Amino acid sequence: MAMNELEQLNISTLRMLGVDMINKAKSGHPGIVLGAAPIVYTLFTRFINIDPENPDWWNRDRFILSAGHGSALLYALYHLSGYEISIEDLKNFRQLGSLTPGHPEYRHTPGVEMTTGPLGQGIATACGMALAENYLSNRFNRPRYKIATHKTYVLCGDGDLQEGIAMEACSLAGHLQLKNLVLLYDSNDIQLDGDVALSNTEDVKAKFEAMKWAYLRVEDGNDIEEIAKQIEVANAMEKPVIIEIKTIIGYGSPNQGTKDCHGAPLGDEKTAELREALGYKLEPFVVKEEVYDFFHENVLERGIKAEVEWSHLLDEYKQKYPEAFKEYQDFFYGNYQIREEKLPVFSVGEAESTRKILGKVLEHYSVDLPNILGGSADLTSSTFVKGANGNFEVDTKDGRNIRFGVREHAMGAIVNGINLHGGVRGFCAGFFVFSDYLKPAIRQAAIMGVPSVFIFSHDSVCVGEDGPTHQPIEHFAMLRSIPNLNVFRPADYKEVRAAMKYAFLSENIPTVITTSRQSLPTLENTNEERALKGAYVVYEASKNFDGILISCGSELSIAIEVAEELKNQNINVRVVSMPSPFLFEMQTDEYKESVLPANKTRRLAIEMGASMPWYKYSQNVYGIDRFGVSAPIKHIHSYFGFTKENLVEVYKNIK
Amino acid sequence: MAMNELEQLNISTLRMLGVDMINKAKSGHPGIVLGAAPIVYTLFTRFINIDPENPDWWNRDRFILSAGHGSALLYALYHLSGYEISIEDLKNFRQLGSLTPGHPEYRHTPGVEMTTGPLGQGIATACGMALAENYLSNRFNRPRYKIATHKTYVLCGDGDLQEGIAMEACSLAGHLQLKNLVLLYDSNDIQLDGDVALSNTEDVKAKFEAMKWAYLRVEDGNDIEEIAKQIEVANAMEKPVIIEIKTIIGYGSPNQGTKDCHGAPLGDEKTAELREALGYKLEPFVVKEEVYDFFHENVLERGIKAEVEWSHLLDEYKQKYPEAFKEYQDFFYGNYQIREEKLPVFSVGEAESTRKILGKVLEHYSVDLPNILGGSADLTSSTFVKGANGNFEVDTKDGRNIRFGVREHAMGAIVNGINLHGGVRGFCAGFFVFSDYLKPAIRQAAIMGVPSVFIFSHDSVCVGEDGPTHQPIEHFAMLRSIPNLNVFRPADYKEVRAAMKYAFLSENIPTVITTSRQSLPTLENTNEERALKGAYVVYEASKNFDGILISCGSELSIAIEVAEELKNQNINVRVVSMPSPFLFEMQTDEYKESVLPANKTRRLAIEMGASMPWYKYSQNVYGIDRFGVSAPIKHIHSYFGFTKENLVEVYKNIK
Repeated sequence: MAMNELEQLNISTLRMLGVDMINKAKSGHPGIVLGAAPIVYTLFTRFINIDPENPDWWNRDRFILSAGHGSALLYALYHLSGYEISIEDLKNFRQLGSLTPGHPEYRHTPGVEMTTGPLGQGIATACGMALAENYLSNRFNRPRYKIATHKTYVLCGDGDLQEGIAMEACSLAGHLQLKNLVLLYDSNDIQLDGDVALSNTEDVKAKFEAMKWAYLRVEDGNDIEEIAKQIEVANAMEKPVIIEIKTIIGYGSPNQGTKDCHGAPLGDEKTAELREALGYKLEPFVVKEEVYDFFHENVLERGIKAEVEWSHLLDEYKQKYPEAFKEYQDFFYGNYQIREEKLPVFSVGEAESTRKILGKVLEHYSVDLPNILGGSADLTSSTFVKGANGNFEVDTKDGRNIRFGVREHAMGAIVNGINLHGGVRGFCAGFFVFSDYLKPAIRQAAIMGVPSVFIFSHDSVCVGEDGPTHQPIEHFAMLRSIPNLNVFRPADYKEVRAAMKYAFLSENIPTVITTSRQSLPTLENTNEERALKGAYVVYEASKNFDGILISCGSELSIAIEVAEELKNQNINVRVVSMPSPFLFEMQTDEYKESVLPANKTRRLAIEMGASMPWYKYSQNVYGIDRFGVSAPIKHIHSYFGFTKENLVEVYKNIK
Repeated sequence: MAMNELEQLNISTLRMLGVDMINKAKSGHPGIVLGAAPIVYTLFTRFINIDPENPDWWNRDRFILSAGHGSALLYALYHLSGYEISIEDLKNFRQLGSLTPGHPEYRHTPGVEMTTGPLGQGIATACGMALAENYLSNRFNRPRYKIATHKTYVLCGDGDLQEGIAMEACSLAGHLQLKNLVLLYDSNDIQLDGDVALSNTEDVKAKFEAMKWAYLRVEDGNDIEEIAKQIEVANAMEKPVIIEIKTIIGYGSPNQGTKDCHGAPLGDEKTAELREALGYKLEPFVVKEEVYDFFHENVLERGIKAEVEWSHLLDEYKQKYPEAFKEYQDFFYGNYQIREEKLPVFSVGEAESTRKILGKVLEHYSVDLPNILGGSADLTSSTFVKGANGNFEVDTKDGRNIRFGVREHAMGAIVNGINLHGGVRGFCAGFFVFSDYLKPAIRQAAIMGVPSVFIFSHDSVCVGEDGPTHQPIEHFAMLRSIPNLNVFRPADYKEVRAAMKYAFLSENIPTVITTSRQSLPTLENTNEERALKGAYVVYEASKNFDGILISCGSELSIAIEVAEELKNQNINVRVVSMPSPFLFEMQTDEYKESVLPANKTRRLAIEMGASMPWYKYSQNVYGIDRFGVSAPIKHIHSYFGFTKENLVEVYKNIK
């Protein structure tokens, strides 16, 4: 078979595998499969350096299918490329428990670099991966010994680029001139509701150039030589590049070029016409040997060759730069130790805000964990969250402080990308009320099991004067209800230390830490180790106590005052600090019973936030189920009734 | 006093009032006050048509302070302009219960068009206001009788423009070529963390022109003649315009041009230096009569003159176009009636998805309420939510379907802007799982008390094949915990009708309606009127029942099946449909007790979502506290245990 013919067969095979998967599942998105197949085909057979037999090789190129609905294309491509995805797996597309779910899922299918589906997340997360690569290559590469050289390629569609998160991320990527980042824009002029031109008519080239990206263009998305040529140009550039590739959605199918082929299976009749149009004769799920051979040679073997060369280079690097090599190994495999004895300590009663305490702990962490990077969304001086060693900028790529700008949503996704990349770990920060802006990215971290660290200061109405727009209310409910997410609200320095330890040492659970704006007293019976159990007893008036107060964060000290006053009035209560309901739920039934005995039903949960999260633990909740108010903090406690006097009465009035 | 000198005094007065307010409050943001005062001064004294004595005059120009932290500037400006804000109010800036809270709050301070503070929201909401104006002017203006002619002016800063929501909105505004929208960009090169150039270096002009905006520029933000000239140019344009005005943050203060003057009071010493620099001699909060006189003449009198002219024009319009006038009056004051008898009806047992039912109800509403506009975020064919009369586009401004594109966040804010504007009402739609993307805009609607309607289809794991990224879990907890927000999850057509009625007739409460992807049976005992109470009894096996099942939406029919099966086993339970906990909480204690008697403690709440929202009503909750799974819907119910068989056992096993 002539090369040209074989390549056509390869692409047709890719297209038809995807279409057959969708037909069999009776569910999926054939439009992108047919339209974008030549793009990923060209990328994978000529450029991408991966080892499907060792998907975790760290200098592999990353490929992100930001348009996650194109999963059938991805799985078909991965099958042909040699990942452990069988024809049987393709046949089980979108079935319960299969290796090939409806959208690509990280930690589920080999080769999938991240979970995609929610549009825009792929682009922004890829920016984080590229940032990690830019940081690491600057740190570890030496003349003639470049051990970090990989690319981050993204396939995205029209809808992807309409998302605000994508625009935020691209703006920052352009500012930072992230190299080795290539956005392959599957530009087919169609989105779910019809012509893109009905909702978007901007000049993509001018817009990206305004954001300091390079813009390249391929007029015919079936012209693999032209696609290859432009990828080559892109790969040589020292900045992020978007290649707009004009494609035809549903190419070859009867409704090609229309929205009708976006999100529904083609079915038998249209598939027959498609086969005819593509000149494709094989039965569903049958792949010719020469196609496998071609992919084997041009993806797997080429990838393994690159990997072997890299290994040799690394060996030489080890000889030549033993210190850097050790550091590199520590970055990737190092079990860094936190020097606990160096962490800040406060004496009982000493007042400090948990945001400042966390800032100090983070400074120590930044010394002991030389591979953490992060920063704030233009709130460094308010959150006290700052990366070490100056700003990460075009000319100072050794800086570990990322200035995200007021781009909260992209910030969250970028941190996910840094953590997904490996070698480095990422964290970020903002005001708690604006956790809203990055909630979709936090969900992504939880769904992927990526240990991103999200720090939010100003965690209650005690923000004060800035008023309701800046005062969180429902945010604990919003975040604590996300599965697989540790939301930790520390009360003093010991609990801050616990929160930080969990957050930065976790392997597969993201953590949200919230901190106070206002100063809080250091408490006597808080405990770092027990805080890591999520909830524990911090005060008990008597072994034979009457009821339980449950609280956390800035309200814990108030709860203890309330308990002390109740004791004065001969009412004995226990106070439970519950900084993390998530961690508490992971404890044994015995432990849970020891903290919250079932027979002690007289309970009061106290938190300056929506009451919703607490009813599981207490039928009586003193929370705030309305919006906040602009006033100096000295008025806030009494206005909302978070005073010893009021809460003593509230407890006594429990029926 | 020479004109020039007087204008300088006016501007200095504005600046110093703001600074003195902040000093007195010991809290606030002087940087923008000093930097942007000449911009708003020029706008208000030469251009804006408002009547501070009648702030609701509907053809007034809208002014949105998107950079809400500049509230001191706004209040000082409003005071001078003649709104009912006294010097005493200015002195009470940021105090408990004052008229002048930390950020501008809608329905709180006269003249404040919307609540701002969360960056980006102001820009996007203003796009919605401009869209409303563009729709109404197209609909009602006649040659020589232009009754809708107002502008929407926005003052925004650097941070504002970094937000994704702002980029989404600007992209759509450019696409729609919204005229009468002018963005005054207070471009001072500084943001909270320092130089803007450290996080953003894009070419603003090129970027906005790429989005089809006009770009104008003023080099010296103190040159009011130049500012006036450019506003005049902008006002003559038939598209949205950004005017980049180069200013100096904290102008006149010792730290001008640095981040140090952004967010902290200047204090006595620096204020003294500022007074010196501005040549300003008056005591704090003292305003010269000639300054009041100038504002009176150039804002209030000019505004009233415009209003009177408009009223005359409207009188003539009424004579000349009586039908259009009646229609106009209906738009603004009409108590439209929904023809209930025309609404779709289903027979008991008949199966249909609530998304399709809602789509049909919406079609009827669109006839009976000719002033509603809205659409979907590129998901029209999935949500069945579409505005009437074709697309609202540059050449078809009578279309009432807005094609938002994949811009969920801006969509939410734009709908808020449409509703804030008046004359029209807005709604929007997407997948429930992506309510995440517009959560900050939903919060804004709730905080302002704006009756926006947010419709989300695919409201459970029954989405099926698309898998965890498309399957909502924690979203009910996220939204039901927002104060002042009605979250309504209907079970069949009667409850859909209830949801729609509440949503579209509410004056000050926004509503979220969620609908199912899958078909649901029409139930016997559901009831439109009772559904509006938030919760009610839909099944009772016996007056002397043992316990209560609480459910809603697609799980209600399962709950009834469970109750019937339990009755077969001689266990009598009541089933409560609770489509809206929000509305239920508004009922009397008697009503609540009648639905959920306190002595009936054996309860089970059933919902395909995070269990958190239900513990308030039931200590036993059968929910989903993990992420979903990609599988055909036929497997979903059994996989998650939402089957009659399993739930019967769950109920029987309650301790």
